Amino acid sequence: MSLIVQKYGGTSVADLERIRNVADGVARSYDAGNNVVVVISAMAGTTDQLIEMATRISVAPAKRELDVLLATGEQTTAALLAITLNSMNYPAQSLMGHQAQVTTDRAFGNARIIDISTSRIENLVKSRNIVVIAGFQGVDPTGNITTLGRGGSDTSAVAIAAALKADMCEIYTDVDGIYTADPNVCPRARKLDRISYDEMLNMASLGAKVLQIRSVGFAKKYNVPVHVRSSFNLEEGTMVVNEDNGMESLMVTSITHDKNQARITLKKVPDQPGVAAKIFTPIADAGIIVDMIIQNTRAGGQTDLTFTVPEAEFDRAIEIEKKVAEKIGSEDVFGAKNIAKVSVIGVGMRNHSGVASIMFNTLAKENINISMISTSEIRISCIIEEKYTELAVQVLHTAFGLDAEE
Amino acid sequence: MSLIVQKYGGTSVADLERIRNVADGVARSYDAGNNVVVVISAMAGTTDQLIEMATRISVAPAKRELDVLLATGEQTTAALLAITLNSMNYPAQSLMGHQAQVTTDRAFGNARIIDISTSRIENLVKSRNIVVIAGFQGVDPTGNITTLGRGGSDTSAVAIAAALKADMCEIYTDVDGIYTADPNVCPRARKLDRISYDEMLNMASLGAKVLQIRSVGFAKKYNVPVHVRSSFNLEEGTMVVNEDNGMESLMVTSITHDKNQARITLKKVPDQPGVAAKIFTPIADAGIIVDMIIQNTRAGGQTDLTFTVPEAEFDRAIEIEKKVAEKIGSEDVFGAKNIAKVSVIGVGMRNHSGVASIMFNTLAKENINISMISTSEIRISCIIEEKYTELAVQVLHTAFGLDAEE
Repeated sequence: MSLIVQKYGGTSVADLERIRNVADGVARSYDAGNNVVVVISAMAGTTDQLIEMATRISVAPAKRELDVLLATGEQTTAALLAITLNSMNYPAQSLMGHQAQVTTDRAFGNARIIDISTSRIENLVKSRNIVVIAGFQGVDPTGNITTLGRGGSDTSAVAIAAALKADMCEIYTDVDGIYTADPNVCPRARKLDRISYDEMLNMASLGAKVLQIRSVGFAKKYNVPVHVRSSFNLEEGTMVVNEDNGMESLMVTSITHDKNQARITLKKVPDQPGVAAKIFTPIADAGIIVDMIIQNTRAGGQTDLTFTVPEAEFDRAIEIEKKVAEKIGSEDVFGAKNIAKVSVIGVGMRNHSGVASIMFNTLAKENINISMISTSEIRISCIIEEKYTELAVQVLHTAFGLDAEE
Repeated sequence: MSLIVQKYGGTSVADLERIRNVADGVARSYDAGNNVVVVISAMAGTTDQLIEMATRISVAPAKRELDVLLATGEQTTAALLAITLNSMNYPAQSLMGHQAQVTTDRAFGNARIIDISTSRIENLVKSRNIVVIAGFQGVDPTGNITTLGRGGSDTSAVAIAAALKADMCEIYTDVDGIYTADPNVCPRARKLDRISYDEMLNMASLGAKVLQIRSVGFAKKYNVPVHVRSSFNLEEGTMVVNEDNGMESLMVTSITHDKNQARITLKKVPDQPGVAAKIFTPIADAGIIVDMIIQNTRAGGQTDLTFTVPEAEFDRAIEIEKKVAEKIGSEDVFGAKNIAKVSVIGVGMRNHSGVASIMFNTLAKENINISMISTSEIRISCIIEEKYTELAVQVLHTAFGLDAEE
């Protein structure tokens, strides 16, 4: 008898009819002889509505209390799914974070799971109950309600699957798997049958928003097999698993892109120790996430420094850096929103040379200028002009042999 | 320094603006030097909406899960009030049933409080925090979420006040106190400054729906002084306290009425042991509450038996009793919805004779026929035709000297 953890996202539980569909899916797996633990998100839009309500009271609502408020979203859907399953004569019980004993640290709004005490879940499962756990929420060691941050239900599901040593963690979502590129941008994109944790980690942080990145890190650490699949059909999706021999043959498995980027340059920064800290500390204090950083050495003890931030943070970041520039004596601050990041990803890259060269040549052939480059062990990313995004993804997809057969 | 428990009902927290008013009220008491614990209901209408959603899934939603769903209502308002107080720079923390450690039995949907472990609340109060507790909810000994039934927040508040040995439990509501009669029916009705627990108990069960009756029982048992007052103004309301000498002078303190009654009669019931059980067991099994029962002895070993039920249950009750009548050989079942119950209440009744005689004479003078009578130590109730309700309340109010001075 297998133990399956199934996670359903906000669009899968957006109304009572869809919750009924979820219940049918859970029942199907249960009837096939599996033990089933369900982790559930709030109805699509609910979390945003609750945040909006809280920010009507205060621009910065008390974080502890905001988590209490947000936790009602998953509590509602967990109860509704359990009611639905019970009405279909399946034994089901909902558990909130405090009941499932999902213990987190005290970082309200972005808590990290530190322990899951599984005895209660296991006892319910042993007596063939379907356990419906409210995702996204936990309690700190003194019983305060915490939430795990945007997309946290994925992490809940994988962490619970890890703690239960489940045979599989199924992530039900509104796409039917992981693709070699975004099918909206690249018509020849193919669904991948398998992808490694490391590749997924690189994709998740690059705008392929299928899985919360923290959940993939968790899955890798505890070796939880994750199956990303559609909640609207029964087709197999994509398995996210440990790197295996079969995978290594593929040099590049996917092309991702992210238009949600902006570039900021500080011109003629004095080339002295401590300058970088002066530039980035105020940005970090403002909670703005910096992605790529490039520094070119120039003559005369001065350098230009360029970095990227999310497009939505561009104006705030420019304002902060203008003050910094005055202090450190930089000549000018300027930037652009119309940029995009295109990346090629693949664990095979480790064993093959020449990926970078193919990438740069392919873009050059189309006269696409590269303004910034960054690399990781299994990824190369280029910043290009936003208008070339689709073209770049398509030609790279072809160049690395990813195109679906006609 | 006094410890005050304040309870705010659903209309007092119906939107963010009213929650702000509640916060102002809490802050006023805190600034006056009191320690304040707030018990809060769900927004008006929320509980009904949640029940409606659940019953769209199933006519009889799983009770355990329905409680999980309903508990989100108070969780939401508790968080919103705490956010509001924090935004006004008052130290406030919300606590859910499981955090405030309100332990109940396992009767989902109608749970009874068996213990409140106050250490967490007391520690917060000691460091001058305002504690905002979600009313209506608790947890059973194994941590399942339970709710206390309709109006349960009143009971939460009084129970918490009792456990904390609070100096006062203030119940904020949309009326400004307890009246000698319903002012809509009896223009000369006066607000009472004080009323005894026993009188309030009799009023609560007689349609004066200001306080959940269980909360009054709790207040009496633990001698918690309760102050019923308006959440819309600062005027003193009515103190519900132990009977004292000042009160005994008043023979009757109030006249109540209840139009939500229906009468059912079984004609020619065999006058044998066990018959009453056969009549009322099916009614009890159907969850219908019977109020008054009258049985007249008749010639020939047969009797007529009449009882009252809530008007909404009339049709179901008639249907049940028609089957009963066939089984036990009763000749006919009939009833009426157009009846009302009028009651006079007063602890002074114990020491005075003649209350019944004044009541019956007053009604007779107006040609109001009494079809049923029931009495308790401090109450006399008569069933009359519904159309005479207002007249009966008014003439009794005058007859017992309750009229406000012109």
